[in-house]
Amino acid sequence: MARIIHAAAAQMGPIAKSETRKDTVRRLIAMMREAKGRGAELVVFTELALTTFFPRWLIEDEAELDSYYEKEMPGPETQPLFDEAKKLGVGFYVSYAELVQEGGRKRRFNTSILVDRSGNIIGKYRKVHLPGHVEPQPGRTHQHLEKRYFEPGDLGFPVFRGFGGVMGMCICNDRRWPETYRVMGLQGVEMVMLGYNTPYDHTGHKDIDSLTQFHNHLSMQAGAYQNSTWVIGTAKCGVEEGSNMVGQSAIIAPSGEIVAQAVSLDDEIITARCDLDLGKRYRETIFNFAKHREPETYRLIVERKGAVPPPEV
Amino acid sequence: MARIIHAAAAQMGPIAKSETRKDTVRRLIAMMREAKGRGAELVVFTELALTTFFPRWLIEDEAELDSYYEKEMPGPETQPLFDEAKKLGVGFYVSYAELVQEGGRKRRFNTSILVDRSGNIIGKYRKVHLPGHVEPQPGRTHQHLEKRYFEPGDLGFPVFRGFGGVMGMCICNDRRWPETYRVMGLQGVEMVMLGYNTPYDHTGHKDIDSLTQFHNHLSMQAGAYQNSTWVIGTAKCGVEEGSNMVGQSAIIAPSGEIVAQAVSLDDEIITARCDLDLGKRYRETIFNFAKHREPETYRLIVERKGAVPPPEV
Repeated sequence: MARIIHAAAAQMGPIAKSETRKDTVRRLIAMMREAKGRGAELVVFTELALTTFFPRWLIEDEAELDSYYEKEMPGPETQPLFDEAKKLGVGFYVSYAELVQEGGRKRRFNTSILVDRSGNIIGKYRKVHLPGHVEPQPGRTHQHLEKRYFEPGDLGFPVFRGFGGVMGMCICNDRRWPETYRVMGLQGVEMVMLGYNTPYDHTGHKDIDSLTQFHNHLSMQAGAYQNSTWVIGTAKCGVEEGSNMVGQSAIIAPSGEIVAQAVSLDDEIITARCDLDLGKRYRETIFNFAKHREPETYRLIVERKGAVPPPEV
Repeated sequence: MARIIHAAAAQMGPIAKSETRKDTVRRLIAMMREAKGRGAELVVFTELALTTFFPRWLIEDEAELDSYYEKEMPGPETQPLFDEAKKLGVGFYVSYAELVQEGGRKRRFNTSILVDRSGNIIGKYRKVHLPGHVEPQPGRTHQHLEKRYFEPGDLGFPVFRGFGGVMGMCICNDRRWPETYRVMGLQGVEMVMLGYNTPYDHTGHKDIDSLTQFHNHLSMQAGAYQNSTWVIGTAKCGVEEGSNMVGQSAIIAPSGEIVAQAVSLDDEIITARCDLDLGKRYRETIFNFAKHREPETYRLIVERKGAVPPPEV
């Protein structure tokens, strides 16, 4: 029996700082309805989809900082999204800033959840690879303070049964690291969902930053191909509070081919019919891990964090 | 001070079964001379560059099989290549079938060496990821019996100081596995050299095999970008003994960009001026491993060989 997920990526244009959660959730619901109308049963929203990308600013007032985080999910402002999902019979992935009280202290994560077609949360992930800095960098128009505002995720890269397949999640910078896909690939992942906010000035070097679109696709295509999995990458894009962010949301097949791509820098739905069995021939031949991987040779990947070049001769 | 390697990939057209080592070495020397004339100080030859790609046949006669392997390096037939390298002041990477007597038995490896500009071997690698099968597969025009004719390499993925940088090697199928590049990346590799023999029927599935050229570049470009390293991939290509093999040898920058590419399916030299410091800005920002990697999260990569999906619900 064919195992098909009709999936959508719901790319999002800028969210202004002044935009309320209510306004933003209304935009998400409108996209969910359009996706449903185009046959989708699963909608992948972007990273930090409920607010502007606040790590671009140094925010020293704690109440102001906290206002960007969700203390419950769903909460009063996000409940309508869950209600709509249930009503339409559409599942979704969404990412948001999560604030929890644990061990007597505030813990902050860049989090995503997977919600099934009945509106139930069936999976949760916390971003592992936090880019940027703890302290503001002099000379930058926009900061990138994710290392200040979030802890690295403490849930690993879990996968979840849902939508008839094995589903995985990651967020933004995670997509550049082959380990992300591989850890999920070793759990038989068949579809990786991710959202991203990627400004064109993220490294501060023009030669790198001018290749941002190329690198965006290269990482996701390699991750898909090398792990025989679908990848759905959804951007927040356009010019948000003066920060210029990459679009090109894409649905990528286990072959590494881009089968759907956004063309705007605004709210835009793209869809694809994702056959989960398409990866099977890859998994059974060239990427038959059980036959071809040689884990003993890979030990350095877990034994070493940073690179250590050999001594100078 | 700029750290530049003027490098060449010496793509090779078919080697007929009837071609002698002497003939083949003559071709390699001709390419080395052309590369030198075009300013190269390092030439990357292909995989199993001294013979036809014999794993396409079931060879049951041991003496015949042994005839494809080198018992010493350099040996009488390969010495002229080393002599020419020394004379020209050009280093090289070359791969060959290696036969050694160890522990009272024959051991067979798919091996590569790095030779410096004085003709001295300064590095050795044995292919880790052997593709194909131990037993011939019914219905295939050409077999792929690397798992029959070679043991997995026992040297890991070592790197070597040479040519002013940190040099790494892999061979053919290794290039599809992100672990290959990462283990070298964690040793600060700045240039990965590899040769490949990749037939268009290697999986036996038309939908996969028709994407062979795309996958060839995708894997190498991702490996380069994600590890801030140059990659030089050199094909044996064209129609060799009825087997149709991919060309498109490429020199790839640490940005993931292809900066030189072969256009023929024959002996062809491509060159590039490889600035080893080009990867520095990547290593110091987006791919600063010491800052951004989270090895504890990657444990499955070494703890598990094959994929284990979660239980059905």
